[in-house]
Amino acid sequence: MKIAVLGGTGHIGIGLSLRLAIAGYEVIVGSRKGEKARQKAEEYTSMLESRGLNGVISGADNAKASELSDVAILAIPYSHVYKAAESLKEDLAGKIVITPVVPMEKKSRLFIYAPPPEGSAAEKIASILKDSRVVSAFQTVPAERFANLDERFEWDVPVCSDDDEAKRIVLEIVNSIDGLRGLDAGPLAASRLVEGLTPLLINISIRNKVKDLSVKFV
Amino acid sequence: MKIAVLGGTGHIGIGLSLRLAIAGYEVIVGSRKGEKARQKAEEYTSMLESRGLNGVISGADNAKASELSDVAILAIPYSHVYKAAESLKEDLAGKIVITPVVPMEKKSRLFIYAPPPEGSAAEKIASILKDSRVVSAFQTVPAERFANLDERFEWDVPVCSDDDEAKRIVLEIVNSIDGLRGLDAGPLAASRLVEGLTPLLINISIRNKVKDLSVKFV
Ligand SMILES: C[C@@H](OP(=O)(O)OC[C@@H](O)[C@@H](O)[C@@H](O)Cn1c2nc(=O)[nH]c(=O)c-2cc2ccc(O)cc21)C(=O)N[C@@H](CCC(=O)N[C@@H](CCC(=O)O)C(=O)O)C(=O)O
Ligand SMILES: C[C@@H](OP(=O)(O)OC[C@@H](O)[C@@H](O)[C@@H](O)Cn1c2nc(=O)[nH]c(=O)c-2cc2ccc(O)cc21)C(=O)N[C@@H](CCC(=O)N[C@@H](CCC(=O)O)C(=O)O)C(=O)O
Ligand SMILES: NC(=O)c1ccc[n+]([C@@H]2O[C@H](COP(=O)([O-])OP(=O)(O)OC[C@H]3O[C@@H](n4cnc5c(N)ncnc54)[C@H](OP(=O)(O)O)[C@@H]3O)[C@@H](O)[C@H]2O)c1
Ligand SMILES: NC(=O)c1ccc[n+]([C@@H]2O[C@H](COP(=O)([O-])OP(=O)(O)OC[C@H]3O[C@@H](n4cnc5c(N)ncnc54)[C@H](OP(=O)(O)O)[C@@H]3O)[C@@H](O)[C@H]2O)c1
Repeated sequence: MKIAVLGGTGHIGIGLSLRLAIAGYEVIVGSRKGEKARQKAEEYTSMLESRGLNGVISGADNAKASELSDVAILAIPYSHVYKAAESLKEDLAGKIVITPVVPMEKKSRLFIYAPPPEGSAAEKIASILKDSRVVSAFQTVPAERFANLDERFEWDVPVCSDDDEAKRIVLEIVNSIDGLRGLDAGPLAASRLVEGLTPLLINISIRNKVKDLSVKFV
Repeated sequence: MKIAVLGGTGHIGIGLSLRLAIAGYEVIVGSRKGEKARQKAEEYTSMLESRGLNGVISGADNAKASELSDVAILAIPYSHVYKAAESLKEDLAGKIVITPVVPMEKKSRLFIYAPPPEGSAAEKIASILKDSRVVSAFQTVPAERFANLDERFEWDVPVCSDDDEAKRIVLEIVNSIDGLRGLDAGPLAASRLVEGLTPLLINISIRNKVKDLSVKFV
């Protein structure tokens, strides 16, 4: 299975690319610039090789990466992701599209959840990508610890979708990553509850001096 | 320190009353009916005695319990709590008031967060109890497991308030209960993020066949 990580050059994109490659998926790093994507893909491959790990990682511009993929992850900041989705609409038709997007604002020291009128980033993305199978996941995975291959964690990842088969496939992808447990969190309308968890995690991190928290349901 | 559990006759009220008494607080079970409260207080005391545990638990109507207390917990359903707070306003003046309240609606199999226009139950309660020191806590603690004294758990409890000293006191109260860890989650405006976590927990419980989930930040 080919997974494109669009914006895979960024913070959460690194961890996703590395760990999905380790899990055995064929990863395509996407970027606005094909050349930057290919560079990053080489970098990530070297990072795996230096640990004696194998992984198939290539790079392409976001449109090409989308077209080549079975599953694409929108690892792009919320302030840009809607426009990006609009422009990739055709390339993503028929594909499973995962959104890890969290619309957040910071007011003084407080992070607040700032969803669009559709109710959540996931629902807005689904309204743009009408021909894709949109699934929401990975919002509560902290980028820095996730990218660090020395890090050990046991995190739960809620997964939401209106497409049950796509949700099942994404749950499998999540569970294939060592240390993550995917949990069915309901339809896409429930994504707002998951997205809202992220500012809470960050607020708690800041105030209790523990960096990069995630969540476990116990 | 005297803690009144208003609506302490109900689901979450039992666990709070038992466990706060075990932690050494003087507990006053509150009810709309003084007689029902005294009955429940006796019942809870017997439950502790049958396990060889000590605890000081008395009962009174909600107004009297509020008046006698240093700290009061509003363990009343969201559909009734605002009116109840209105009528207890005078009795609760100057007190620390804890809200565990979660405004939720169920649409077919999906629980959704249904906050009032103020942004959260906590903010609405603070707007009613202008002379009290409102703190938000306990929203994610599942009543049934919490009331079962055989249950072992390790749960995190986010605590929000605009009153830093009141928040510190409530964090101490939370931490005094075996198995709970209190975490500063920011001002009252952050309570919506905590309240919203509860329908997520319930949705995940239902869909993954694990009863009464709570949360741990890791
Ligand atoms: C990591 C980097 O900070 P940064 O680049 O600002 O990144 C901060 C966050 O964006 C980063 O932690 C993200 O992972 C937060 N984050 C998310 N951030 C997002 O933007 N979007 C997300 O969807 C998201 C999800 C998420 C999930 C879980 C989680 O735990 C964190 C999550 C850094 O090195 N920070 C320094 C300090 C940088 C800094 O801002 N310092 C403050 C002072 C900090 C202080 O008071 O101690 C300042 O300069 O004023 C540090 O933490 O030591
Ligand atoms: C526990 C009792 O169910 P109940 O009285 O309806 O209570 C259900 C919930 O209200 C109860 O679980 C609450 O603790 C849920 N809950 C909260 N409930 C609230 O109303 N408010 C809260 O703030 C709240 C917080 C909370 C936090 C964490 C958490 O894990 C749960 C939380 C029970 O015995 N249920 C039976 C079944 C009852 C039932 O509704 N059955 C369904 C079928 C269920 C199925 O399909 O299996 C039916 O009759 O249609 C069971 O679970 O086996
Ligand atoms: N950071 C976290 O801890 C974390 C955790 C969970 C989820 N998330 C979510 O994941 C997404 C990405 O977050 P991030 O922290 O990884 O972001 P980031 O590092 O700031 O950006 C990711 C990538 O987005 C691309 N990008 C930037 N501006 C763009 C634009 N105008 N149009 C298209 N692409 C653009 C860039 O790639 P190119 O320059 O190569 O095109 C960049 O490398 C966000 O929606 C966030 O909410 C983040
Ligand atoms: N259930 C949970 O798992 C859970 C977990 C965390 C937080 N919470 C929150 O805790 C609060 C209580 O939940 P619960 O499940 O314990 O509720 P509950 O058992 O249904 O009710 C609690 C008590 O509220 C009182 N009450 C009922 N109607 C009232 C009214 N009109 N006016 C004043 N008091 C009234 C009753 O006491 P009297 O008849 O004795 O007056 C009742 O015993 C809710 O806001 C809920 O969101 C619940």
